[in-house]
Amino acid sequence: MERLRCIIQYDGTHYAGYQVQPNGNTVQAELEKALKKMHKGEGIRVVASGRTDSGVHAKGQVIHFDTTLRIPASNWRRALSSLLPDDIKVEDVEVVSPDFHARYDTTGKEYRYFVWNAQEEDIFKRLYHHHVRDTLDLAAMREACAYLEGEHDFTSFCSPKTDIKGDKVRTIYQADVIQEEERITFVFRGSGFLYNMVRILTGTLLEVGRGERKASEIPGMIEARNRDAAGKTAPARGLFLWEVYYT
Amino acid sequence: MERLRCIIQYDGTHYAGYQVQPNGNTVQAELEKALKKMHKGEGIRVVASGRTDSGVHAKGQVIHFDTTLRIPASNWRRALSSLLPDDIKVEDVEVVSPDFHARYDTTGKEYRYFVWNAQEEDIFKRLYHHHVRDTLDLAAMREACAYLEGEHDFTSFCSPKTDIKGDKVRTIYQADVIQEEERITFVFRGSGFLYNMVRILTGTLLEVGRGERKASEIPGMIEARNRDAAGKTAPARGLFLWEVYYT
Repeated sequence: MERLRCIIQYDGTHYAGYQVQPNGNTVQAELEKALKKMHKGEGIRVVASGRTDSGVHAKGQVIHFDTTLRIPASNWRRALSSLLPDDIKVEDVEVVSPDFHARYDTTGKEYRYFVWNAQEEDIFKRLYHHHVRDTLDLAAMREACAYLEGEHDFTSFCSPKTDIKGDKVRTIYQADVIQEEERITFVFRGSGFLYNMVRILTGTLLEVGRGERKASEIPGMIEARNRDAAGKTAPARGLFLWEVYYT
Repeated sequence: MERLRCIIQYDGTHYAGYQVQPNGNTVQAELEKALKKMHKGEGIRVVASGRTDSGVHAKGQVIHFDTTLRIPASNWRRALSSLLPDDIKVEDVEVVSPDFHARYDTTGKEYRYFVWNAQEEDIFKRLYHHHVRDTLDLAAMREACAYLEGEHDFTSFCSPKTDIKGDKVRTIYQADVIQEEERITFVFRGSGFLYNMVRILTGTLLEVGRGERKASEIPGMIEARNRDAAGKTAPARGLFLWEVYYT
């Protein structure tokens, strides 16, 4: 028995999220279906670093699973990819220690959120960007980012639908806004993220960018520990789980 | 009665081409459905500059139709867009002379074909690029482009499934290859294009780029007037009808 760790990418457009659920197609279900085929009908359980919501994409999701198949790691990638739909791709496969756990061992994650900031919508960007027509104040959004960095109780930036029972204290190592022509990229690196947190952070930063809120209001929003204090949840299509960190 | 000319964009991924046909959803059917709604159930016939194949995209398709509705041209765009799915967009609406004809009045067209040239596939580029793994010889492809330019009988670069009865002489004003990092763009401007012509031109240029054929073989392929003489048809997903020219 070997434990394998894979880095996978997926286009979340047509999925009801990462995690297996009764209604709708999910990335996990596709992975487990492909693995079941490779294992001649034996069910293989896949564990991911965490779930992603319906419509959210991944550039570097990490999963692990156990297998009795004797395939060199270098051949796994091609074998598995050939059984997956073309919106899921295996980037890397590595044999890891049987102790490795894709969820429990994470030390942090990076998410990126892409905004297409132009007067005109571009339909060829629509699947991977949130289109924002308004002029955005980059300096104000960067000022707001500085307030978000550090260890805080992010209750205000967590969907009330969360099933997290523990505390909502997380550390944002880096929050940044990068502009390249019409594309604005929000980068969030942190110890962990709550349900909808990146989308609420982005939605709030966009309100700051539009001048609807001031950057200096961020500390008050955090202190409120109340979802209503923060901004709207930005749509799923712009969000990418970019990288998962392990020690 | 007024005649309107519109520039429209569409993501062809989920369409069985531009033109109405019995099986499958088409761009024309979506446009006519939206116009029928605006005209309270009256059927409106849309005429395009030409059809595009299943899976082919458009950045600047041109259509015309006649209407009795009294809406300022500036409001048409928003009204029509709001009734269209999010993979079809109206870029521009203009009142034209009742003599204008979107198909008969074209003086030329520009197509662009996008190739993602990298060892690794990028699933977030897959809908709008043809992925090519091999190293491509840009200089050889450019040399081949020079042989394609000019007035030629392009029978060898036309699908035998064509329903064109007249001659297959067309003029390519410009054929070019542009490289920007992993993206290679093939640009074709010409008087008119035959069925599958741009995809066969691109497929042939890619064979030259891979070293499977020489640029100097192009004149012989043209002279052969035989589809088998040219290269493979490149897939639809990389192709965009970029612009339609009128005098």
